[in-house]
Amino acid sequence: VEGVRSLEEAVSSTFEILEVYYVREILDDPAAAGLLARLRARTGMVREATQREIASVSDTVSPQGIVAVLKQKPFDMTSLLDTKGTESILVALDGLTDPGNLGSIIRTCDWFGVHGVLVGQGSVDVYNPKVIRGTMGGIFHLPVAGGIDLPAALTRARDSGYRIYVTDVGGGTFFDRVTYERRSVIVFGNEARGVSDQLKKLADARVSIRKYGAAESLNAGVACGIVLSALHRLSSE
Amino acid sequence: VEGVRSLEEAVSSTFEILEVYYVREILDDPAAAGLLARLRARTGMVREATQREIASVSDTVSPQGIVAVLKQKPFDMTSLLDTKGTESILVALDGLTDPGNLGSIIRTCDWFGVHGVLVGQGSVDVYNPKVIRGTMGGIFHLPVAGGIDLPAALTRARDSGYRIYVTDVGGGTFFDRVTYERRSVIVFGNEARGVSDQLKKLADARVSIRKYGAAESLNAGVACGIVLSALHRLSSE
Repeated sequence: VEGVRSLEEAVSSTFEILEVYYVREILDDPAAAGLLARLRARTGMVREATQREIASVSDTVSPQGIVAVLKQKPFDMTSLLDTKGTESILVALDGLTDPGNLGSIIRTCDWFGVHGVLVGQGSVDVYNPKVIRGTMGGIFHLPVAGGIDLPAALTRARDSGYRIYVTDVGGGTFFDRVTYERRSVIVFGNEARGVSDQLKKLADARVSIRKYGAAESLNAGVACGIVLSALHRLSSE
Repeated sequence: VEGVRSLEEAVSSTFEILEVYYVREILDDPAAAGLLARLRARTGMVREATQREIASVSDTVSPQGIVAVLKQKPFDMTSLLDTKGTESILVALDGLTDPGNLGSIIRTCDWFGVHGVLVGQGSVDVYNPKVIRGTMGGIFHLPVAGGIDLPAALTRARDSGYRIYVTDVGGGTFFDRVTYERRSVIVFGNEARGVSDQLKKLADARVSIRKYGAAESLNAGVACGIVLSALHRLSSE
């Protein structure tokens, strides 16, 4: 994780911070100095480094001069699913391959108060640096699990009282006519192929977005935002 | 413009195609051979090239073996605005800097049947190759104009009977409560700063998106998709 802004989010999260490296010049910024003090209080190893060292591990063109290594978090599916009766909206991603899309989708889920994101096997790595950056802190705000066996997870979710909604450009109920249940999983698919047939068979309903123009499809992150924007509106009307 | 798919869109558009370069191997694909025949019928110069030559002008990692040079299109603001009485939804972009966002927004406008896109001065170049690719053919389906003096254009649009809606994370009417007029301009702003104060002053209404979670903001392309998704729904109810 790189940069003052992202590390402010990290230090306020429950992620374990293993190592921090910073350049001396960053301490001239009071915000960065304050951040470093907070990082020291909960990190085993905080070390000064050179600009060159920081750049060598940085994924950005202009590194901000502070990077940290965090421990990946195990995902507790049981505690997420076994919250009987309480409202729980999950998003499942089936074969999503673009890190920009995944980051944007997690950011959007964070905006709309989604309770967890299940990223299926064969999707891009949740801990890809471009994904982390694209979430704009979202990775620290809600549980995101990668490498999930989605057919098994969705079957288990149904057994725990969830309704499964699969998005489908091919047809289904328009997103703003769907009444989502208090416990719902909304499934989005691969950028080109959509949701796999295996998962479609598990769906209680298919959800689509009306088209008025000529485009063949919407960007996966945009489609996700449109569908999620209708979640709360409908349940509150 | 690169690739069979994009050039299928180009050859069906009103853009003038100036030059086409292809590798001999692409003719093994019947779709590509058919495309090349259509290109020959309306292009001054069609020339065989080597893989190396194609790669030297290509913007992609794996060039498909066919590229074309198209003439940029002048944008006729007068004919777009002076369509009195008819439905016309325009999108204006103020200081949008990311080519991925611009491409995605044009693609989304194409999906929702937007009639034209005005890209303000200081935004990313409309003809940036990453923008063209990101539109997924949208650049060939609806008029998109770059380098627009937005304060002047929006003033002129108001004089032509358009209502101006400015999106604003800071507040305003929620996007799904707005009743859009038949002639509307919807303005989206810079990824970090939003819409400029100068344009906000020209607005008839401000539009926002409810937040339910912790994220500070939405991706610009996602926000655009969410707002546009409510356009037709409301006018048809």
